[in-house]
Amino acid sequence: MNPYNAPLAEMRFLLEKVFNAPKTWSEMPAMAESVDMDTAAAILDEADKISRELIHPINRSGDEQGVRHEADKVITPDGYKAVYDQYAEGGWVGLCGDPELGGMGMPKMLGVLVDEMAYSACNAFTLYGSLTAGAALAIHAHGTEEIKQQYLPMLYSGEWSGAMDMTEPQAGSDLRNIRTKAVPNDDGSYNITGSKIFITGGDHDLTENVIHLVLAKLPNTSGISLFLVPKIKVNDDNSLGEANGVTVGSIEHKMGLKGSATCVMNFDDAEGYLIGRPNRGLVCMFTMMNYERLAIGIQGLGTSQAAYQMAADYAKERTQGVAAGGSPTGAAADPIIVHGDVRRMLLTIRTLTEAGRALSVYTGQQLDLAKYADDSDIKAKASRYVGLLTPVSKAFLSDRGLDAAIMAQQVFGGHGYIRETGIEQLVRDTRIAQIYEGTNGIQAIDFLGRKVTGDNVAALNEFVAEQVDNINGYSHVTDSDKAKVLALLENLIQVANHVNDNKLKQPGLINSCAVDFLDAFGYTLYGCFWLAMVDAANDHEDASFTLQKTQLSRFYFDKLLAKADFHLSQVKLGDESIMQMDANLF
Amino acid sequence: MNPYNAPLAEMRFLLEKVFNAPKTWSEMPAMAESVDMDTAAAILDEADKISRELIHPINRSGDEQGVRHEADKVITPDGYKAVYDQYAEGGWVGLCGDPELGGMGMPKMLGVLVDEMAYSACNAFTLYGSLTAGAALAIHAHGTEEIKQQYLPMLYSGEWSGAMDMTEPQAGSDLRNIRTKAVPNDDGSYNITGSKIFITGGDHDLTENVIHLVLAKLPNTSGISLFLVPKIKVNDDNSLGEANGVTVGSIEHKMGLKGSATCVMNFDDAEGYLIGRPNRGLVCMFTMMNYERLAIGIQGLGTSQAAYQMAADYAKERTQGVAAGGSPTGAAADPIIVHGDVRRMLLTIRTLTEAGRALSVYTGQQLDLAKYADDSDIKAKASRYVGLLTPVSKAFLSDRGLDAAIMAQQVFGGHGYIRETGIEQLVRDTRIAQIYEGTNGIQAIDFLGRKVTGDNVAALNEFVAEQVDNINGYSHVTDSDKAKVLALLENLIQVANHVNDNKLKQPGLINSCAVDFLDAFGYTLYGCFWLAMVDAANDHEDASFTLQKTQLSRFYFDKLLAKADFHLSQVKLGDESIMQMDANLF
Repeated sequence: MNPYNAPLAEMRFLLEKVFNAPKTWSEMPAMAESVDMDTAAAILDEADKISRELIHPINRSGDEQGVRHEADKVITPDGYKAVYDQYAEGGWVGLCGDPELGGMGMPKMLGVLVDEMAYSACNAFTLYGSLTAGAALAIHAHGTEEIKQQYLPMLYSGEWSGAMDMTEPQAGSDLRNIRTKAVPNDDGSYNITGSKIFITGGDHDLTENVIHLVLAKLPNTSGISLFLVPKIKVNDDNSLGEANGVTVGSIEHKMGLKGSATCVMNFDDAEGYLIGRPNRGLVCMFTMMNYERLAIGIQGLGTSQAAYQMAADYAKERTQGVAAGGSPTGAAADPIIVHGDVRRMLLTIRTLTEAGRALSVYTGQQLDLAKYADDSDIKAKASRYVGLLTPVSKAFLSDRGLDAAIMAQQVFGGHGYIRETGIEQLVRDTRIAQIYEGTNGIQAIDFLGRKVTGDNVAALNEFVAEQVDNINGYSHVTDSDKAKVLALLENLIQVANHVNDNKLKQPGLINSCAVDFLDAFGYTLYGCFWLAMVDAANDHEDASFTLQKTQLSRFYFDKLLAKADFHLSQVKLGDESIMQMDANLF
Repeated sequence: MNPYNAPLAEMRFLLEKVFNAPKTWSEMPAMAESVDMDTAAAILDEADKISRELIHPINRSGDEQGVRHEADKVITPDGYKAVYDQYAEGGWVGLCGDPELGGMGMPKMLGVLVDEMAYSACNAFTLYGSLTAGAALAIHAHGTEEIKQQYLPMLYSGEWSGAMDMTEPQAGSDLRNIRTKAVPNDDGSYNITGSKIFITGGDHDLTENVIHLVLAKLPNTSGISLFLVPKIKVNDDNSLGEANGVTVGSIEHKMGLKGSATCVMNFDDAEGYLIGRPNRGLVCMFTMMNYERLAIGIQGLGTSQAAYQMAADYAKERTQGVAAGGSPTGAAADPIIVHGDVRRMLLTIRTLTEAGRALSVYTGQQLDLAKYADDSDIKAKASRYVGLLTPVSKAFLSDRGLDAAIMAQQVFGGHGYIRETGIEQLVRDTRIAQIYEGTNGIQAIDFLGRKVTGDNVAALNEFVAEQVDNINGYSHVTDSDKAKVLALLENLIQVANHVNDNKLKQPGLINSCAVDFLDAFGYTLYGCFWLAMVDAANDHEDASFTLQKTQLSRFYFDKLLAKADFHLSQVKLGDESIMQMDANLF
């Protein structure tokens, strides 16, 4: 199997040419001194190296061996601990963390690319750091100064890890019914008791402590609050104290992601500390959740890229059959990349992956602006865009991730079904990305129900107007491609207004049509990004890069953009045929 | 987990009402005496029982344990041998076999439904019998009388099993380059030497002998011939003789189907017997291949049905969130089947599965007519239809099978990713159905390149004209549904003619657009079948059955039929954007 190689040229192109990161950074006081394109390129180079040389080698072996639960200990696969130590020492867990507390203070625009590489190299390993970074973000946003000083340096350094404890057997998509209790103590701490399931990185042997962010209910409330609960109590001098009533009930046996410890966690009068205000726990947890949602989208994106590389390499090497017009070299068998159907699959993966990377970087840019922009209007607008784009990034990138893995597996033929080849692992590993951190159905309902129609289509209108402006400014794309995307954007607004106008009359409409609306938005947005990429590639120093982007966009506009129309037509058909049948006839 | 229950009412409805099986059978001399609707219903009831009580219980355990290769023996999971013995003793392997040689002589129309049940119950187990029945079919069609007398009774009875040995490391989709050699002996037998990979059921402990049908080349030819090679030589009195130079090199470790032995088979001067004429082996093997292609489509169909049952049961039991318009019962949480997105997924699976079953039964009917019809015109026409429908059944049913398994898994949320739930096994098991027996890309190229344009669209025209006649005869469907399907059929012919007219000018066109054309045909054909089902359900004795079919069809025509148009539009866009990019830019 060929080792993973990060698509560095594409990544630099997106940062520098498509989204003008150097300008964004130079205008943000927090970034102006610390990052420019040279720094960013150097970090990308280093991330490529550790993804290939450090992380990728434990991907297959970790899948074969899996996590074990023995005598109350959760043991990660061979090699995980050594790799994690180097990864943490390199500062990668705290890449985008607060520099005043030990983070590296890098922009998320860059962070998403580093995350993508790590996920391409190994889905399961990368989750440990991702959950830690997400927990740090929530603590940073909602924790007291004392909590921040105590926990963040240890999380950024990777010495401790983080976990997000929300789901209970009876409360998954709907968290209102959680039963975990928090009883206040006299010293301001709380005693947490309850059981949580599906806790990624809930326990493991990579770090000496695991910092849980746990949703629980205070006495006599139906509201939900958030608590920080360390596996091992932390003394005032930051040394580790006694065990804290946090134990692992079991680990799950899963379809994939076998190197990631998915735990049932039991809290038995465990000492916890309130994060944020009482009964406002979901809001605080959403700081972490939104971070993880983007991260999980990037898991799908990283899988797409890895799948593409494996399939494209294979298609250029494997010979079978001759080209339809006769072998160009007169060989008895040509590399299968001569075959239209193989190309169709590769081009589908590639054009969706490149546009997906644009979505990831653009969302990262909006996160940076929402956090660091000097101008409060820019900041507020970026926050609205982050709200819109988070569910889309999570769902559309992870859905396309599974599609990519399955298509890539198909390119391998029978060999794709064999474990040693490695491509089937990508299918199994990435499948969960459509489910956890809120299923993609939940993401779509969040998008259409809250983000799009929740403000009567205001944010979407604003976002679409900006895309229209951008598109009208491109001078190196065809008029017909422009016109197609502009028509879709208009159609998207019309359909959004239609749903908004009918949401009360047809209560089932949003839930029934949300997935189609999100998909329509995704394919349209990718059309916007393909226009942006072609326009920016026009004067690329490497003429083959320009040609490649033009030809890839040709495929996208010919073959994939029309999916947006199809999905919009589904939304327009409404929910009647979905809601009419009585449950007992199913 | 709920046990599997065959959809017996749907099965009987298709046979009796939609495709008028009793009439078909009464008009065929070979069937008139042996099968009527009562017999068929009794066989379906019994098949349901053994699928649920005998086969389904070894499904999960077989996946956990897998096949082992120890000391030259291939050992199936615990329970497989005992279940296989009962299955074989029940006569199920020889259900459609020649009654003069020990088969039960049942029609394929019925056989496809029995196969579906077995695949629903356990993909891996069912392959052993399927390969045996396929090998028997090829031997019956092309073997000498002596070979038939010697081998068929033992295959029909399940005492011996069959395997299909085609693929070699360098020759998969393209068999021209196989290297296995056959050297003639003086006694009329041949010595076979070579290595075959991916041999399903190549060796195992279920039967005392394995009968291999092996593709090999005679000396100084490039043609391919077919040989029967028993694992253990058979004496003239049918007792087993000495070992025959057939050994297992290794077994594959696969994504799923872990109870099915996938072997590397080595033939070392193994004694073999020519089946059919020299250098005509591919034609003979295609008798088996076509049988297996339909069977593998049915693997996908059986998976769809099993996935639907699991997901629908779960959706009616699992409570989470309340209905969009407020809980109908005032509960804190409703069963998730109230949610539009869950219904959308279940309805998609169900409407495709029911139409898929119609495709399977219809194809079975054409196979029966092609084999047993009294009238030679009917026979010849049915053969043409079988040619058209075999690649469609294989690819469209198995593609929809994976879709169904993935959607059903999504209904389960996080629990769907856990092995104990069982739904993730369906995803892993059915994934191979899109790959083996010719990838679905190969099926599509066979369909568009050979079956549709190979005779300048003659067979497709004939088939479509018959569908149009049928549709015009329905009196219990809406005019608008009729009109939609009729327009699609017309469009399908136009696009087929367009491809046919341009196939020489654009050599990449068929390969590039074949998958889209097959999908367009599939969704259109399912539209035809939904019209047929609604029309036939009009006077069903159970009014809720009529209502259910009407409401299901409403969903199909609203939401899924339009996919046919989308795929046709892809074909019309041609191959330019697929073929233009240079291989080194991938």
